[in-house]
Amino acid sequence: MSEANASFLYGQGARHEDYELDAEQCWSLLGASGVGRFAFLHEGRISVFPVGYLVFRGSVYFRTSPGGTVSHSLPQEGVALQIDATQPAQKSGWSVMVSGRAEAVVDTDEITALFGQMADEPWAGGVRDLFVRVVPAELTGRRVFLA
Amino acid sequence: MSEANASFLYGQGARHEDYELDAEQCWSLLGASGVGRFAFLHEGRISVFPVGYLVFRGSVYFRTSPGGTVSHSLPQEGVALQIDATQPAQKSGWSVMVSGRAEAVVDTDEITALFGQMADEPWAGGVRDLFVRVVPAELTGRRVFLA
Repeated sequence: MSEANASFLYGQGARHEDYELDAEQCWSLLGASGVGRFAFLHEGRISVFPVGYLVFRGSVYFRTSPGGTVSHSLPQEGVALQIDATQPAQKSGWSVMVSGRAEAVVDTDEITALFGQMADEPWAGGVRDLFVRVVPAELTGRRVFLA
Repeated sequence: MSEANASFLYGQGARHEDYELDAEQCWSLLGASGVGRFAFLHEGRISVFPVGYLVFRGSVYFRTSPGGTVSHSLPQEGVALQIDATQPAQKSGWSVMVSGRAEAVVDTDEITALFGQMADEPWAGGVRDLFVRVVPAELTGRRVFLA
């Protein structure tokens, strides 16, 4: 009997399982770029919002406004950049989190290199020419699915 | 000339604009339930991961494991529950964040009512019968699109 056919053994909701992803799987899911969520502390509260990110030389980068909330909160330890994907019909999905230090990129050669890599303009309005680097201290991920 | 036809005026990337959503729009996007991301502090670092949430009597609820990381971090002020949707082809999207206090639900009548509302089992494995309430102190949202 296949595992799929045995799901009734676990009752109406079947059996949900979750597994940790290793670093290689996490980097693979991050890919070269995408839309993630940046979570940081601002005035003692956690803020979370979507950013278009770029993976470059082992760190994760995104662009923000030089005068904005993120900019004023840098540098900061213990921030997170998170991505996920869910398949509601299958009640399955995965989530990957880069945990580490966020800091403004100030080296002009590095900024030039980043502009070369990150061709797309940020979706949000205004001038967003400050690059933020998230240096991974930990990379964790989980996959959840119906067994 | 329509706004759509005028986009060339703003160069190759067109003009990206973003607008704040009001509380009514934010509640509407949250809906009755869905998958969001819970962000909280654990050992001085921000953790973010997906949760299936329920909106009930003006608060946002999700289920977690009684012995897990979330449980050990409660009660906690300044947490966030965030949802978003993006349309990459249009470079547009929206994001809504509930900011406030997270606490374990201990009242048995309330737990019974919540089990009645939240029929679906959490996707992740293990026993997840602790309900967490996020009491909104602030509800904020933004919409981003090509003008």
